[in-house]
Formats: sequence, C-alpha cells, structure tokens
Amino acid sequence: MERDEICFMDAVELAARIRDRELSAREVMAAHLDQIARVNPKVNAIITRITDDEALALADAADRKLASGAEVGPLHGLPVAHKDLAPTKGMRTTQGSPLHANDIPEVDALIVERLKAGGALTIGKTNVPEFGAGSQTFNPIFGATLNPYDTSKTCGGSSGGAAVSLACGMVPIADGSDLGGSLRNPGNFNNVVGFRVSPGRVPNWPSSLPWWPLSVVGPMARSVRDVALMLTAIAGPDRRSPIAIEQPASLFASPLERDFKGVRVAWSPDLGGLPVDPRVTAVLESQRHVFADLGCDVVEATPDFTDAEEIFQTLRAWSFAQAHESDLRDHRDQLKDTVIWNTEQGIGLSGLDVSQAEMKRGQLYARMMEFMDTHEYLLCPVNQVPPFDVSKPYPTEINGIELDNYIAWMRSCYYITVTGLPAISVPCGFTPEGLPVGIQIVGRHHNDFGVLQLAYVFEQTTQVGKRRPPVVE
Amino acid sequence: MERDEICFMDAVELAARIRDRELSAREVMAAHLDQIARVNPKVNAIITRITDDEALALADAADRKLASGAEVGPLHGLPVAHKDLAPTKGMRTTQGSPLHANDIPEVDALIVERLKAGGALTIGKTNVPEFGAGSQTFNPIFGATLNPYDTSKTCGGSSGGAAVSLACGMVPIADGSDLGGSLRNPGNFNNVVGFRVSPGRVPNWPSSLPWWPLSVVGPMARSVRDVALMLTAIAGPDRRSPIAIEQPASLFASPLERDFKGVRVAWSPDLGGLPVDPRVTAVLESQRHVFADLGCDVVEATPDFTDAEEIFQTLRAWSFAQAHESDLRDHRDQLKDTVIWNTEQGIGLSGLDVSQAEMKRGQLYARMMEFMDTHEYLLCPVNQVPPFDVSKPYPTEINGIELDNYIAWMRSCYYITVTGLPAISVPCGFTPEGLPVGIQIVGRHHNDFGVLQLAYVFEQTTQVGKRRPPVVE
Repeated sequence: MERDEICFMDAVELAARIRDRELSAREVMAAHLDQIARVNPKVNAIITRITDDEALALADAADRKLASGAEVGPLHGLPVAHKDLAPTKGMRTTQGSPLHANDIPEVDALIVERLKAGGALTIGKTNVPEFGAGSQTFNPIFGATLNPYDTSKTCGGSSGGAAVSLACGMVPIADGSDLGGSLRNPGNFNNVVGFRVSPGRVPNWPSSLPWWPLSVVGPMARSVRDVALMLTAIAGPDRRSPIAIEQPASLFASPLERDFKGVRVAWSPDLGGLPVDPRVTAVLESQRHVFADLGCDVVEATPDFTDAEEIFQTLRAWSFAQAHESDLRDHRDQLKDTVIWNTEQGIGLSGLDVSQAEMKRGQLYARMMEFMDTHEYLLCPVNQVPPFDVSKPYPTEINGIELDNYIAWMRSCYYITVTGLPAISVPCGFTPEGLPVGIQIVGRHHNDFGVLQLAYVFEQTTQVGKRRPPVVE
Repeated sequence: MERDEICFMDAVELAARIRDRELSAREVMAAHLDQIARVNPKVNAIITRITDDEALALADAADRKLASGAEVGPLHGLPVAHKDLAPTKGMRTTQGSPLHANDIPEVDALIVERLKAGGALTIGKTNVPEFGAGSQTFNPIFGATLNPYDTSKTCGGSSGGAAVSLACGMVPIADGSDLGGSLRNPGNFNNVVGFRVSPGRVPNWPSSLPWWPLSVVGPMARSVRDVALMLTAIAGPDRRSPIAIEQPASLFASPLERDFKGVRVAWSPDLGGLPVDPRVTAVLESQRHVFADLGCDVVEATPDFTDAEEIFQTLRAWSFAQAHESDLRDHRDQLKDTVIWNTEQGIGLSGLDVSQAEMKRGQLYARMMEFMDTHEYLLCPVNQVPPFDVSKPYPTEINGIELDNYIAWMRSCYYITVTGLPAISVPCGFTPEGLPVGIQIVGRHHNDFGVLQLAYVFEQTTQVGKRRPPVVE
C-alpha cells in the first residue's frame, strides 16, 4: 500500500486493518516515519521525537502482541504524538517555555496513559504556544508551527502542533487541550476535527486545580468517527480527577448515525454581534442548507452571552496567576509579554472578583440551559477570523474593529467555554484563498455523544474537508 | 395503631404500609400532626407549618391517588419538612435571617421538588442557624432548637431542626445541607443519620455558585435504609446542576447488605491530633470491635490533613463574601457577629489566596486518594465534642485547648468536606449523661452507596441508636 494511502486513512480504518492483519503496525509506523521525515521540516509540528529505530521497535512489539493472540486496545498500533503541555514519562515536556526546556516528567498524563493503554504508540510531542497561552503556536524553544494550507499563516493553537500533524498525515490521532478554544481553533485552521468535550469527560490529570472545569483535555483527528474511536479509549471516570463524569467510555462505541428530522438547531452567525471576518461567514452560510437538508429545524437564534467576556477574562487571569505568579517573580525575563500581562491581571484580582465571575457564570449557565431546552444544538463560527499571518502573535482587529487584548479574537470559542457545554470544530469549507474554516457545533449539557452525531452526519453529507489536501505534502 | 408506633416507624416500613393500604396517608399524617402539637413546642424544630387541615387535605389527596390505581413514588404519603435554607414555593423561607424573614419563594429547590415528586407531603420548614452559619441552631426569628435528649443542650446544626424533627418522631424523613458538617453534626447530636453525599449526588439547585462542590444538599432519617430510600427519590442527574453525577437514583435501591470480610478500614480517633472530648472517644472506642467482628481489617491510620484547615477556612470565607458582602454593606446591624466575621474574612481575600487554597485542596485530594487506595473506609469522630450548652453560640475550648474561631470545633467534619468524599454520621452510642454520639464513616470517591452499606451493617449489628429514645416525648 502506498504511503499516502496509509497516512491519510481514517484511524478507524487503519486500526481495523492492523487488527485484521491486512497491515502490520510496522508498515503503518514506517509510512508515518517517512511522512514525518518528508513533511515535518516544512511545518515544524512534531518537536520532540523518539528515533525511527525506537518507533519501529514499538511497532514490532505491537505486531508481536497481536500475533500472540493477546487482547489489544482500540488504538492498537496507531502512532500518536502528545501535546507538549501533557507530561510524558521519560520524554521531554517543555510547555513551550524556556523555564521547562529540559523537563523530563516521571509520569504520563492520564490521557497519555490511556492512549498507550488503548494501544497507541507514542512517537513524540507536538508543538504549543508558550504555556499554551494564545491560539498561535510559537515559542522560543521550537519556533512556530506553520499552517500546511499556507505556510505563511498560523496553524492556530494551542493544540497547533497536534492539528498540523494530523492534517499532514504524520499521525492518525492526537490529543490536545482547550481552555479558550485550543482544541477547536487549530481544528478549524487546519481542516481537522477538534472536540472540546465536557469537563470531566476525559479526566484531566495531573492538574493543579483538579475541580476547575474550564480547562479540558480531549481528542483530535481527521474525522469525527476517529474522534469517537479515541474517546472509547480516553473517556470514562478515574478518581484521580474528582470531576470525572461517571459514564463509561463504551458510550462512544455506539453508532454515530442518527435521524435529525425535526431537531431544532440554533444558527448564530456572530454569537450576538461579535465581529466576524466575512470569509468565515461566507463559508458557514454556504453549508447552512445542509442542516435543513438533514431535516433540522434551523432557526436564527443566539443565547444571551451577557457577562461571558468578563467571566472568561477573570477566570482565565485567575488561573494564570495561580500557575505563573512565582515564575513572574523569579523569571520575568523568560516569559512572553502576553503571559506576563495575563498573570499580572490575575494577581490584581480579589477573591470577590473571582466569586462575582463565578456567580455570573452560574447565571449564564442557567440562561444557556433554558436556551438549549428549546434548541438541541447551537451552530456558530469556531473563530472570528481565518488563519492569519504567522508573523503576527495575534490579530489586532477584525473588520476594522480594534481588539483590546491577545485573545479577544477567540471570543466565539471562549463564550462557549464558560457555558461548560461540549463543542466540536468540524471542517466546513475553505476561503477563496484556500484556507480551512470549520463550524462549531455546541451540544446540550454532557451530551458529548450527541455533538459527535450531528458532526458526523454533517461531515458525511458534505465531505467538505476531504475536498482539499494541504499544499504542503 | 398507636401514634408512637407510627411516628417512630422507619420510613421504609411506613411507606410500604401506606402503599399496601395497611395504613392510610391520613392516619399517618394525623399521628404526625398530633406528635408535632405535643412535642414541637418543647424543642422548636419545625418553625413554619401549614395548618392541620391543609396537611390532612394533602394526605387525603395522596390516599385518593393511591386508590385510583395511579403509580406512586417511593415516598408516597410520608410527611416531610424542609430545611429553612431550601426555597419552598409559596412557603416562607427565612434562612434564619431577619433580612429574609418574609421571603416567599416562587420556586421549590430541586431537592424539595424531588421529594414532592417522590410522594412526600410537605408540611413545613425546619429551623436553621442564621444563614446556616455555625453548627448551633438558633436565630433571631425563631430562637433556638433544643436537643431532645437534654433540652439544655444544642441540637447542633445547621440542619438542626431537621434532625430534631426526626429524633422526636415529627417527620419520618427530612432534607438538609452540609458545608462544614451540617448534615453530619446534627445527625450526631440527635441520634439520627445524616449523610453528606458526594457533591452532585443530589443536584444542588438553585445555587449562586453551581460549580462549587463544597456545599451539598442531602438526606437525613432515623435509619440508614431510610436515607437510601430518600436517595432513590432525590439522587440522579439534572442539568440545572452542572456538577450533577451521571448515575441514576435507582443505584440506591440495591440491597444494603454486604460481606465486609477482609475490607481494610482506617480507624482515626482524632484525625491526627485534633482535640476530642474523652466522652466522644469513649463511645467510639466502645464500638470499634464491631467493625472487627464484621470481618474488617481495622487499622489505626490517618490521612495527611496538612492544609485542610487553611483550605476550608479560605474557601468558606470566600463563599461568605460572595453571599453576604452586600448584606454587610447595607444591613450590617442585622447580621450576627460570626457571619460578619466570616464575610469580612472573605472580603479580605485575594484571588491568589483562593487559588492557593484550591491548589492545596488538589494536593490534599491526591493524598487522600492514595490513602483510600489502601483503606476502603475511614472511621472517625463526627464532632470533637458532645452536645454543648444551648446558651453558648459555640464551644470555645476542648480538653483545655482554646479554639480560635466559631467553627474550629467542627474540624473533624470539615477536614472531610474538603476532600470531597462522601461521609455519613450514624448513631454510635451515648455519653454517661445520655447524650447521643455518632460515628463518621467516610467512603471512597463517589462511593456513596458503599458508605451506606457499611453504615447499614454497623447499624443493624449494634442497634445502638434504638436503645434510647429522646427524653422529650
């Protein structure tokens, strides 16, 4: 089988072929190593790697295990690279910060542990912005990761290395995390799928704030069914995370097909007046009919997002102060400006500022529940802009409207974050310049599976993501 | 059937007799109204009530529903009174504060709604300390609730009215809530069962901080199986509470019997050096053998509770500032000193103080998980003192050791709160003066059912709670 055929095959298909011995894990690994050698230098997505020999040895062990008749996991033999924010046992984990340039963790993050237990073969780490801050993947250790659809553009972030690795066929599955949009934004910018699952759906461990539901870890892949496959390995409770949802991972092995006739869906082109680049709007509008064609009752409606901005900015800053206050004190010169700004913002908060934000979040949640009682899904842009110049740390204006901070262009993502609802980015089309644009599908409380179902049916109907491969190949 | 037989029957038995038409809901209600008329004036536990005619009309309606052949809930026909912190639609809800002396809510709290849906008949409200602050049930509107085992003593709190109503046979089931011990402490002081369930086990709505897991609502009853019965009606997810646990209420309909042979249980007489009144210690030690007799492997061991004090005091104060900062500004003269103190403490907190506490709570949780990996249960005192003089707002010393604030005597309760683990207070015995003392059984993460099982087997073996009725009868 050709390298390209292997490297761009859905993970579901690839895992099935390995399990059925139509392909060996070694063949699969070799194809991916070849692809990485060829493509990674052009995009800089995988920034830490084991040697090819080590990777092939892992694959051989997987093949031997299968040959022995032992039971194997759903991801058996699939190469994977982990986001460089996730600790990996014995493998350098920098968080994109010079302060951690030489960290070698002693344990795997729970999501890494589960991917390995599911049979995936860890070959390296994917690039991130410094401390994951800002949805543009660059840092002083590894530099920027480039968008494979136009290497003069950003791949987004913070799970940028993961998304590009997927888009370029360098891995069939990848993990990421999402506070302000870090699974959705890079999915959106690179024509892949990024799923911000419900807090606790994939237990987040280690975490310095284990009860905090704003930051989640989750799956990324090139197709919705691959994301579902990953969840059969990484979802499900673990008591190391006190907020882990008490539902088994097997939930995600159910059929993704569903009849959407009569399902009421809210269509919100700008989430209530956010500036949105017309190229993004045009792509979304071009596919709006698909939901109607599926039988959905599509109505233009937007929840009341009052206070969402204040809630997110306050709680994000609060978490930055928790994480980086001592770094700021001791190593200010080794932090990027936006991390300094966000941390100082957090240091200036009172306990009352935080509880006010939490109280308002409760009120927003209540309004959102009411909205979702009459709308089973909310459809909206993932981001307000298409991929921008990789030389810019962040966009400073949209449609001539000036933005007041480095994450303000991410509002369409983080307004959803604060509601706590599951939200996926799934490919929706391309700008006239050929840049990918995704659509954000938001589901009801804890209905992660329902989000996958609508995303799957949309993807199967449009096949829009498959229409255009990356220009870097 | 005699009034006393009805009023002191387990709720499970009472509900069965009503369902089997051996007793009518009207007979049951009449007996309880008679008991309330006779006993409540001596203890002041039920502080708001519908009229006897209204109560009997509710009971008649329940009888008619049953006669019609309609399906009825597990609590059908059982009188209930709700904690006066829980909003009740159309029924005065004061929170024990003059500021809310005339509040009449427009909605029921979710726990109230579920009790009613389960067939329970709301007859009134049970007394609380002002805003539930401090485990001593007195307030300027209704005065103090007295301990039915010695009316010169406190009944504890904050679910004090609930516990006394149960102890005196005025209701067969009651609801409460618990931040620092408010379900466990009054259970302990009044020879009944109070169960601090896992956060989210009984969805807490309305709540101004819906993601906050420290304050929980839960069941109280005179027996463990009655608490389990209540949970079949009040547990289970509801999306109004974002942290509700995704497990059905039917979980609590399983048999409570279990073989405890070889189960490793940690016995901690003072949770690592807390002062404990020797009368409390003596009662617990007198029953220690029961766990060994059941086959448990009982080992003396205490988790590392470092930082528990700081964590709880910080987060409690933070929540007080959220709830009462504007009251303090506008109505300081109508707040009790301890509420003022706690609110001012909270106002003085920085965001970093709060995140430090949350971070330390995460570390404590991790240590606790490790401890509970090798100990399936932790057994310890509920409170460090037996019921104290009702004229004192709170104990100021234990064993000659001075206590530095109004809740310091509750550490044995709130050290458990901050771990997030489920914990029950179940009757264990009496002091030489005849005052009730409970034992606290703490279970593994989300294993509420397992806590009930050990509590049930202990209760069935010892029958210690049944040995001594209240002196007020």
